[in-house]
Amino acid sequence: MTFRLTMLGSASALPVVGEYPTACVINSHEQFFLIDAGEGVQKQLIRYNIPLHKLNRILITHLHGDHVFGLFGLVSTMGLIKREQPLHIYAPAALEELMSSMGIFFDLLPYKIEHHPIESARAETIFENKTLTITTIPLKHSVPACGFLFKEKTPALNVSKAAIANHSLSLHEICAAKRGEDIVRADHTLPNSMLTYRPYSPRSIAYCTDTAYSDTIVEAVRDVDLLFHEATFACPDSTRAAMTDHSTATDAAMTALKANVGRLVIGHFSSRYKGDNTPLLEEARKIFPQTYCAAQGEVFDVKLKH
Amino acid sequence: MTFRLTMLGSASALPVVGEYPTACVINSHEQFFLIDAGEGVQKQLIRYNIPLHKLNRILITHLHGDHVFGLFGLVSTMGLIKREQPLHIYAPAALEELMSSMGIFFDLLPYKIEHHPIESARAETIFENKTLTITTIPLKHSVPACGFLFKEKTPALNVSKAAIANHSLSLHEICAAKRGEDIVRADHTLPNSMLTYRPYSPRSIAYCTDTAYSDTIVEAVRDVDLLFHEATFACPDSTRAAMTDHSTATDAAMTALKANVGRLVIGHFSSRYKGDNTPLLEEARKIFPQTYCAAQGEVFDVKLKH
Repeated sequence: MTFRLTMLGSASALPVVGEYPTACVINSHEQFFLIDAGEGVQKQLIRYNIPLHKLNRILITHLHGDHVFGLFGLVSTMGLIKREQPLHIYAPAALEELMSSMGIFFDLLPYKIEHHPIESARAETIFENKTLTITTIPLKHSVPACGFLFKEKTPALNVSKAAIANHSLSLHEICAAKRGEDIVRADHTLPNSMLTYRPYSPRSIAYCTDTAYSDTIVEAVRDVDLLFHEATFACPDSTRAAMTDHSTATDAAMTALKANVGRLVIGHFSSRYKGDNTPLLEEARKIFPQTYCAAQGEVFDVKLKH
Repeated sequence: MTFRLTMLGSASALPVVGEYPTACVINSHEQFFLIDAGEGVQKQLIRYNIPLHKLNRILITHLHGDHVFGLFGLVSTMGLIKREQPLHIYAPAALEELMSSMGIFFDLLPYKIEHHPIESARAETIFENKTLTITTIPLKHSVPACGFLFKEKTPALNVSKAAIANHSLSLHEICAAKRGEDIVRADHTLPNSMLTYRPYSPRSIAYCTDTAYSDTIVEAVRDVDLLFHEATFACPDSTRAAMTDHSTATDAAMTALKANVGRLVIGHFSSRYKGDNTPLLEEARKIFPQTYCAAQGEVFDVKLKH
């Protein structure tokens, strides 16, 4: 039961030779979700073996070019390889209109694009299946932007083999126990808690870019196992960070610390650091030791917790 | 006096890890012209040291994504690095409308984009300066498409130092000779041809993608020094080439042979060859030995001819 973040890049708006714009894939139980689609994202998906035919949902944090300009190529390529199933795109509403105006590129696609407009100003659940919910996290940026919280649902109860054997549970009783019921027999009652267990504790990954530091984020990502938080700038460039509604490595680490997250991944690095992001990592680790640098191809697995 | 083609990629529509979509820069006397702008082109420009502040003209052959989707990022980046001078884009008319509809990305650019619509159905001169003309070449593709012929103008006459010394030419006479006039003196006439020479013969580069084989192209590129011609497919895939309005390596080589060009560069290779384009090169060289494979970063200089 995979729950994994794969980074496809860690650059910010200005292009960096050898890196790609910040984007990632979250694999939740072999369902793949792409977050953001900067230029070259389709190549990164291929490079890191993300199966395009299993990529059915794309989430866009906000409509700045370094998070969007790779979407058009990816959508076209999915057409060229004869995709048939619908592609779901969750993004600020203006994207749908924009893509409609690009009809010369997309009118002949052999599959349907389903647009799901995001209202970035407030948290909302934008996706839900048996095992997962995705909720938006309002961010603080120069344009409407939101992060995403991927949270496993509490798994169904399992009935322990020992309980089945010790109490000779019938099929009917096992089903009742799985539903959380106590088993009431003629002479005694077996409390549900004695028979069942949760196979694992729900895991969570949050992804926040682009944003300045925000207490709202701290609350939204409280106790997540893995937090990606942008750290475009180092602390000495905090004025620049404030001017552009971005975070420093310190901001990202403070968010992680206050929110009591498991691990922090920082990325969306400014090109001014020329690919040497060690100072940003060191800055963050002084505050939050479990910090890691995003880089294309880095994989962060969240292990099952029993 | 540089006259140079630099390839920025050689791939076609489907993305190839390790290659970029077919595009090139032509450097004519230190003026830079980008032809086509597939995804990642801005990174390739940086990688191959093309000075963005000297790139003032972008030519788009046709409106398929692998020739256009990198334009948006490049235009944005030019804004981020505070470009001020206008950027001229020569492309089918629909591009201007498309970019207008992408206002959320381009409304705040600190420079002006001048759109020059191309009517791909007939040859027209779209650019001219002191040393160069650029003329379109109608191509045969599934959508309106044109190639480009870059042709140096015949340079002004130089007056030979020997002639000046031997005939004690006055400043007035030198100017007249430079204008092509004979020098008429009281007792004799000095014919212009005895005094002057052309410093070099005009050079030419033609760039043709995407297209099926066409006799029109042969005529348009007759005697050029350097021809880029797409060769998306190898001869065994000629049915596929015909169905998609593309050329085989044989088509490209036949065009070069019939048109008596100096050298042929082939590119826009289908991803089915997985980056091993040797068979396409061998196929073309059997017909036209002076054939070379395009690959990102390959530079083809056209030397001065005296």
